[in-house]
Amino acid sequence: MDTFYAHIEANRERYLDELYALLRQPSIAAQGVGIEETARLVADRLERLGAEVKLLQVPGGAPVVFGSIGRGPRTLLIYDHYDVQPPEPLDQWHSPPFEPTIRMGEEAGTPLLYARGVADNKGNTMLRIQAVESWLATQGELPIRINFMIEGEEEIGSAHLEEFCRQHADLLRADGCLWETGGVNALEQPTIMCGAKGICYVELVARGAAYDLHSANATVVPNPAWRLTWALATLKGPDERVLIPGFYDRVRPPDEADMRALASIPDDDEALLADYGIPQFLGGVRGVERHRAHLFNPTCTICGLVSGYTGQGSKTVLPSEARAKVDFRLVPDQDPFEIARLLREHLDAQGFSDIEIVQFSQEHPARAPSDSAVVRAMSQAIRETYGQEPVIYPTMAGTGPMYPVCQQFGTPVTSGAGTGYQGSLVHAPNENIRLDDYWRAMRCMGAFIKAFA
Amino acid sequence: MDTFYAHIEANRERYLDELYALLRQPSIAAQGVGIEETARLVADRLERLGAEVKLLQVPGGAPVVFGSIGRGPRTLLIYDHYDVQPPEPLDQWHSPPFEPTIRMGEEAGTPLLYARGVADNKGNTMLRIQAVESWLATQGELPIRINFMIEGEEEIGSAHLEEFCRQHADLLRADGCLWETGGVNALEQPTIMCGAKGICYVELVARGAAYDLHSANATVVPNPAWRLTWALATLKGPDERVLIPGFYDRVRPPDEADMRALASIPDDDEALLADYGIPQFLGGVRGVERHRAHLFNPTCTICGLVSGYTGQGSKTVLPSEARAKVDFRLVPDQDPFEIARLLREHLDAQGFSDIEIVQFSQEHPARAPSDSAVVRAMSQAIRETYGQEPVIYPTMAGTGPMYPVCQQFGTPVTSGAGTGYQGSLVHAPNENIRLDDYWRAMRCMGAFIKAFA
Repeated sequence: MDTFYAHIEANRERYLDELYALLRQPSIAAQGVGIEETARLVADRLERLGAEVKLLQVPGGAPVVFGSIGRGPRTLLIYDHYDVQPPEPLDQWHSPPFEPTIRMGEEAGTPLLYARGVADNKGNTMLRIQAVESWLATQGELPIRINFMIEGEEEIGSAHLEEFCRQHADLLRADGCLWETGGVNALEQPTIMCGAKGICYVELVARGAAYDLHSANATVVPNPAWRLTWALATLKGPDERVLIPGFYDRVRPPDEADMRALASIPDDDEALLADYGIPQFLGGVRGVERHRAHLFNPTCTICGLVSGYTGQGSKTVLPSEARAKVDFRLVPDQDPFEIARLLREHLDAQGFSDIEIVQFSQEHPARAPSDSAVVRAMSQAIRETYGQEPVIYPTMAGTGPMYPVCQQFGTPVTSGAGTGYQGSLVHAPNENIRLDDYWRAMRCMGAFIKAFA
Repeated sequence: MDTFYAHIEANRERYLDELYALLRQPSIAAQGVGIEETARLVADRLERLGAEVKLLQVPGGAPVVFGSIGRGPRTLLIYDHYDVQPPEPLDQWHSPPFEPTIRMGEEAGTPLLYARGVADNKGNTMLRIQAVESWLATQGELPIRINFMIEGEEEIGSAHLEEFCRQHADLLRADGCLWETGGVNALEQPTIMCGAKGICYVELVARGAAYDLHSANATVVPNPAWRLTWALATLKGPDERVLIPGFYDRVRPPDEADMRALASIPDDDEALLADYGIPQFLGGVRGVERHRAHLFNPTCTICGLVSGYTGQGSKTVLPSEARAKVDFRLVPDQDPFEIARLLREHLDAQGFSDIEIVQFSQEHPARAPSDSAVVRAMSQAIRETYGQEPVIYPTMAGTGPMYPVCQQFGTPVTSGAGTGYQGSLVHAPNENIRLDDYWRAMRCMGAFIKAFA
């Protein structure tokens, strides 16, 4: 593998240029910006690699880039995505979100690369392709078949992917899947995650008068901002418990193996509290209890709120509309479609039939075994590359279409060979990766191919 | 007075040009835009009228334009303001807010003039000055002394006006005051209002992590949007009753004279419901009960809400901050400073000490007699100009610094000689007046001067 590592070193400049080109191309799924163009960019890159590439699409969906390369007794599916979260709020970025910029981090000598999507998930996408190129250039043929599946709607809940997976089940069958994510935790320990939460993302819309009024009319004209506030307050109480009847009915508590896995996760409470700038976690949880809450509890989160005047100073206005974006992160065996139905029933029962629910995305939670061949291969690769044992998490707190892509076919899942770290500001302004992590993850990817063969 | 009316007709073009110049000059108090420039414009106009003009200012406050003209046994104080509300949301304006534009209304042949501030209160300010000019040009000397007091912070609660009134009490003493507002109600009946509500305008700010996080972290990281929602829900319940202990303690119910006045207000329920596009008023009130609620109930209104992602589509983000702008409209004898204190105590008692209160403005409510000489003079002027009896409202639902300007000196107040009508969209996008109302209010102003002499 020394020649593999040397090839990466020798090609750093070109590899970074390729990453830059991908980062410069906006691909904001929520706003429908640059999706087709980015799919084309990714497909071109896979063709240059020598893969057999198809751009596949179900009606109304974003193109899925599917690239197949290599042969061998085992097939590895790699799931990544080329879409990114909206870059807003723009004024909080220190450099433009789609202009990749390198700045030194606070740790002396750590160059950081800033751009929307560099951590989630364009960096991982590109380094995994480049690792295969360095392999082919130095190790000969691939010892396994690798199927890249790179989609464009992950950040809006992979709305069309269930349908896609139904139509292309033949392309998805594999002996293991490498999920998009990977990297180190707040204690700099490399991680493996074997599951993903589901999601139900909605927008609640309350409407009042036909137009904004002088707030003096609040005596007799309904205020949608109040309607929305009261409706939201019925969804979750200050004790953080979701109040929708039936919400917790299907929640599967962690089993013994899960609890053992939780117990083996190191304590990074202080590092996280310092990074987030908060005095304590919700409910005062720490250690195993925090990990348990984080990985096994479903959530109900206000992601956005807007009504009336939000600018500088005061404006006495009675708003005509109020909106809240809310996501529910779901754990096995909650069903996002059932949650959407329970939400509607609950609002109706609480007297909020007037509040409209706009449905944005629905994804099932998924969980894979933590002792599969693909997890063992990634553990081996991590030991070789990082000189440490991986920390194996039963699942991650984030969401992805792991259910339709893997779980329905019984495909075991690993994460790893990625650039994640605690400071990457995923989904937030100033998203970034450490460049050292990029090259290390690329090396890890080569070791993983070897170990999985 | 025929020559007075003829002079107005003959000078329409020049008078409109003057109004346009004032409307083109932004003067957004909440955003600190164009305040000094507009004060200068208004002062110049009063100087051209022949008034003795002073630009007065207390430290930190906007200039108050004070112009004195005429002499006679009685002194009339005219209170107007040159500042306007923020024009946002800009995308809802059909023409730029600071570019006055005439378009035909839905009623055939009704030209409407659109601009921020044209109804509230630049139109009234200018037409009252112009009425005095037409008087001087045709009737000779003024038979009364008129003191114009035109301030620049009305739309942010006249923050420095109490101090100003303390320092310049000698300028404010008068036999009657013409308040800024005037016009017709939804039934096209001319109105007179003899009071104003007070206000306490605050912004509530909740803070969470140091930066926006991926919403997967909502398991263990506090969400300020939830904190704000729960805090707001403790301020007012779905029955619209304010829940802050002590809030209603000082509310003075309408007395017998008030109730007689309420009973004499015509029923415009249907006209208003149609205009607002709502099926019913809060609590189902109608007729006298609606007028009573509108004029005699204090309010607690969410004027603005913002947190997290508010753009197109979905973004899974855990916000680091949430803000709500809230106004309390107060009736006699509520005290805005006491209300601010009660709000803080209530939030603390409910477990929301973490929520910051930013104070924007505090004004006392005021009430004047409805049978004073100044009201009788305006009634006479309205009968002459509109050919109708005025409808006399004990107070208005809006707010102004009537307490420091008039009530503390015992100065009786009237409204009238203004361009208000139901469709003027005060404080909202597409604020407008009917041009016919402008000329009619100017004629009414002349008749009022004569009647008050």
